[in-house]
Amino acid sequence: MTNNVSQDFVFGTLATDALRLAQIRAARSGVAHAYRLEPADPRPGQPVTIEISLGPQVAADHVTCYYTTDGSEPRGARGVATEGYAIQLSRNGTVWDTLLWGYLEIWSGVLPAQPEGTLVRYRIEAWAVQQAESRWANEIVGVMGGARPANLEPYDEQLFAVPGQAPLWPIRRTGSYAYHVDEERVPDWLRDAVIYHVFIDRFDPGGGKPFATPPTPGGFYGGTLRGVTERLDYIEALGATCVWLSPLFPSPSHHGYDATDYSSVEPRVGSTEQLGALIAAAHARGIRVLLDYVVNHISSEHPAFQRAQANQHAAEAAWFTFTQWPGQYLSFFGVPELPQIDSDSPPARDYMIEHARYWLAQGVDGFRLDYANGPSHAFWSMFRAATRAARPGSVTLGEVVETAALQRTYQGRLDGCLDFLLLQALRQFFAFGAITARQFDTFLRRHLAFFAGDFVLPSFLDNHDMNRFLWVVGGDTRRLKLAALCQFTLPHPPIVYYGTEAGLSQVRDVRYADGSGHPEESRLPMPWGDAQNQELLDFYRRLARMRRAAAALWRGTRRTLVAGDISGLYVYSCADGTRQVVIALNNGSHPQHFAPPADQPYQLALASDAAIVFDGRSLTLPPFSGAAVIRVKG
Amino acid sequence: MTNNVSQDFVFGTLATDALRLAQIRAARSGVAHAYRLEPADPRPGQPVTIEISLGPQVAADHVTCYYTTDGSEPRGARGVATEGYAIQLSRNGTVWDTLLWGYLEIWSGVLPAQPEGTLVRYRIEAWAVQQAESRWANEIVGVMGGARPANLEPYDEQLFAVPGQAPLWPIRRTGSYAYHVDEERVPDWLRDAVIYHVFIDRFDPGGGKPFATPPTPGGFYGGTLRGVTERLDYIEALGATCVWLSPLFPSPSHHGYDATDYSSVEPRVGSTEQLGALIAAAHARGIRVLLDYVVNHISSEHPAFQRAQANQHAAEAAWFTFTQWPGQYLSFFGVPELPQIDSDSPPARDYMIEHARYWLAQGVDGFRLDYANGPSHAFWSMFRAATRAARPGSVTLGEVVETAALQRTYQGRLDGCLDFLLLQALRQFFAFGAITARQFDTFLRRHLAFFAGDFVLPSFLDNHDMNRFLWVVGGDTRRLKLAALCQFTLPHPPIVYYGTEAGLSQVRDVRYADGSGHPEESRLPMPWGDAQNQELLDFYRRLARMRRAAAALWRGTRRTLVAGDISGLYVYSCADGTRQVVIALNNGSHPQHFAPPADQPYQLALASDAAIVFDGRSLTLPPFSGAAVIRVKG
Repeated sequence: MTNNVSQDFVFGTLATDALRLAQIRAARSGVAHAYRLEPADPRPGQPVTIEISLGPQVAADHVTCYYTTDGSEPRGARGVATEGYAIQLSRNGTVWDTLLWGYLEIWSGVLPAQPEGTLVRYRIEAWAVQQAESRWANEIVGVMGGARPANLEPYDEQLFAVPGQAPLWPIRRTGSYAYHVDEERVPDWLRDAVIYHVFIDRFDPGGGKPFATPPTPGGFYGGTLRGVTERLDYIEALGATCVWLSPLFPSPSHHGYDATDYSSVEPRVGSTEQLGALIAAAHARGIRVLLDYVVNHISSEHPAFQRAQANQHAAEAAWFTFTQWPGQYLSFFGVPELPQIDSDSPPARDYMIEHARYWLAQGVDGFRLDYANGPSHAFWSMFRAATRAARPGSVTLGEVVETAALQRTYQGRLDGCLDFLLLQALRQFFAFGAITARQFDTFLRRHLAFFAGDFVLPSFLDNHDMNRFLWVVGGDTRRLKLAALCQFTLPHPPIVYYGTEAGLSQVRDVRYADGSGHPEESRLPMPWGDAQNQELLDFYRRLARMRRAAAALWRGTRRTLVAGDISGLYVYSCADGTRQVVIALNNGSHPQHFAPPADQPYQLALASDAAIVFDGRSLTLPPFSGAAVIRVKG
Repeated sequence: MTNNVSQDFVFGTLATDALRLAQIRAARSGVAHAYRLEPADPRPGQPVTIEISLGPQVAADHVTCYYTTDGSEPRGARGVATEGYAIQLSRNGTVWDTLLWGYLEIWSGVLPAQPEGTLVRYRIEAWAVQQAESRWANEIVGVMGGARPANLEPYDEQLFAVPGQAPLWPIRRTGSYAYHVDEERVPDWLRDAVIYHVFIDRFDPGGGKPFATPPTPGGFYGGTLRGVTERLDYIEALGATCVWLSPLFPSPSHHGYDATDYSSVEPRVGSTEQLGALIAAAHARGIRVLLDYVVNHISSEHPAFQRAQANQHAAEAAWFTFTQWPGQYLSFFGVPELPQIDSDSPPARDYMIEHARYWLAQGVDGFRLDYANGPSHAFWSMFRAATRAARPGSVTLGEVVETAALQRTYQGRLDGCLDFLLLQALRQFFAFGAITARQFDTFLRRHLAFFAGDFVLPSFLDNHDMNRFLWVVGGDTRRLKLAALCQFTLPHPPIVYYGTEAGLSQVRDVRYADGSGHPEESRLPMPWGDAQNQELLDFYRRLARMRRAAAALWRGTRRTLVAGDISGLYVYSCADGTRQVVIALNNGSHPQHFAPPADQPYQLALASDAAIVFDGRSLTLPPFSGAAVIRVKG
């Protein structure tokens, strides 16, 4: 439909069969827990069943879980705890696995109920009487090419040689597990939030100053916190109730995902005081403020890494995983400038948690957590408990670009995950036209059912790492409005990426002709005033207003009325005790008609296109348009 | 260890990642039942839970199971039965599938309990109120290359294009399901049988005649039923309690797996009367006789196929699946000379069942069923019920060269499956040395646990479709004896392929240098008299004697005592109320010692090597030797 637009490449580490196979095999080949807890999010007084599987190569006749309830590291071996307690798991079944061409053995056991506020830490050992060596449960963080990593499990060697390709090695996490027993739930305010995603350097320089004009889109455009504060009226008028600020700690880059310090604000964008002023002004408007927080990695210029590299015995050396000190260490996607933090290392963990608490004390309302599948699940359980204690009602939202199965394991550890799977489906349906309405509806219903627990999945149409939606559809705002109408009538809170509401697009694709990736192409400076598409902006404002006025839209009962395979017509209703809203989306190139099935009259609540007609009975929808009609129950 | 021996290629249709992926995706992409019944083998009075999954592309808001209990074909649509009954299934969960990159939806429902002897036939429809077209549950029989088949499901198109390869298309079965409610169990005699596998043309011409000397091993050597009858003394002395005869119906080939008639005996090998004489003589010795029976396909020279190809309206046309009459039709691995039978076609089904009953009436004790995963599960449920009624105690053993998961679905439909997975493990451990004792033991324990139900898995070291074990190990009878000792001390009945016990090997590999396969190389004529390895034969006789004398070996409690990773030593015990047997296998190239852990004395029961020493306390095992020691409980 549009020319020279690269396809989405969202799930990069799971994009090919070889990568999926490698991940699945790695995950099933060892002693795999995969955070299988029942219940997934333990409450006080609930016993917890834990389950593991042994891969075909893991011979064991005993499986022991060592655990503590006082926050200390559990220790023990061969069935006996030396720190904390031990429980023996029992064999629970045998499962055939065609991909591994072998059997998995399932073991399970029950950890006793604990009172509110208990951090249960545990490790799981599979061992055999006839065998000196044990295997410990661990998890696959991902797979990577390059040199054979140290500490490879014996069964990894044969699994990751993809014929005709360079080998992919699994990255295993040590397997220090934890869960936090509490009555915490996702804060109510997050459920009906509308989140505005500000990329600071590209939003507003403040004080009426113009943007800088760097030679490339990777340069500094000069946006500041003061600029954000000055635009709170705009953000409020848009209907946003929450601002997510891109990383604002000192960093050498325009994006800030490589911090050199976590205790202050990058001087280019402002100061701690200016952040305080922004928060105060936002709170005065009922707008919450989230920071973008990176636990997984820091800049190699961060003093902690500098000290670790200078002195092998420095306390900070434990923050990182040196495969060969000082030159070789784990890093974010192998980029040496982004050394990876070992989130289970106590000093690193304390640093990250303490600074999060510091910023909460400054008034911040929570965090968007970058690459949250990097740090351990145990880390996030501790992080949420600590941050929620520091500021009740604060939230944690993870960026976990991973399978739905893995995302769901963060329930009880994070308040939610950014919904990359939905993003993919929304763009496939509304932007690329690659799936039908029925396929989209089927995905959506199952997706919502799969994540039915206490977990929030904020939705978005684009972000700073991919082509903007409007670029993908060749500037066709009809399609953007249609997709946004769908997004704003979903159960989970919508995120609007700065500028999307105002018609901001790109001048080049994020993927250049040479195949290189340039996400900064989707981070152009925010248009203001006359440069904004007022009609689009007005539509976004009405979307947010409608969503906040009709709670049926996000917490009502959803029902699909039409999901056409050919027409592109997709109609659903959202109803609660007081209101019934019918949303009709025509994602096709022919006009469509739809009559809401009601005995009482509906009223047109919102139309994406001036040519939409509702005669009180039937909707007429031009190509790529959508409308919501509403009736108040009598 | 040996030169120019081809690796085993047992699971050909599941040998590569591409094939496994294609099969898994196909199996999960549609409306998949996969014979998920709980209980798997319904008894009278038991309600039966059936489960299906809907693939990511299958949109449905209703799932209905139509069933009959009077043997007729169930019929119905959109929730209403027109023949029999209908039950509505309900949504039971949502599962993420990384390989399909989407969600599966699980639905289940309960069919009411039925009395003894009921054949429950059923079909499952997934449908949507908004959609005219339904999808019916079906199963993947396999994948195949070649031309795009007709009647492809819409979701198949995109799933089977393996990048860089010719597309693999799924072969779907229509999904006419059935189970038979009965109290039938695997006959006791099969549990402690020792089965001798006779390839008729290669066993004995009879009457003292020598074998013919055809120019190639694919020619006729002249073995006859009379020859088999004359060798019953030999078979009895070997300790076999059952003879499995290779196909003996009229056929143009030396192997007979392409019959032109199912009602008589191939004149080359004998007559119905001579079969009767063989059966009578065998029964007089307490030896049972199994026929090799091919339901999946017939010879293209069979009159039924001739008539079907001559006349599109002939009754026999319904036996086959013509994709384009008369030249294109489904056939066994695409070989046009072997047209495939539609086992759900009533006339074909009747033909196959009636002829099976006819041979049972002639005194046959059951069937080895060739390519049993070709015909439908429903067919086998009807086949077993009919043959068991015709001859109580008769058995059905399937050749299902497939995953363990699929094999297990034949429980209650067949009495067992030939154990190809064990074959692979036995040869990997004892012949190729590709896995360690611990890996073999881990596989074996899980394998036995997985098939814990009422199901028999006859074991074998080689058969007529692969290199003989002795050829693989370069003629080293030490290794063959060691593997046979393991085989004869497993719970399931052992099969001995004619000649293996007498040192018969090959002159060429089954895979020629040009890559072509020649299984006939493993079907050389049986050596007799001085041409036999008497020491090996004597060992096999003692193995069978020991197995029959000590039921602890096959129905006792198994316990692993040693499973070394480096030594190759593998020791286990089998115990029942009266006996404890310890089997020590040294599958390594260094001598090993082992002392049975007993307070009471053991006696040497069997040694594979004259150099084995047992001093009453400790066994000394030379390289590649094994022994059994036994103690009678006081």
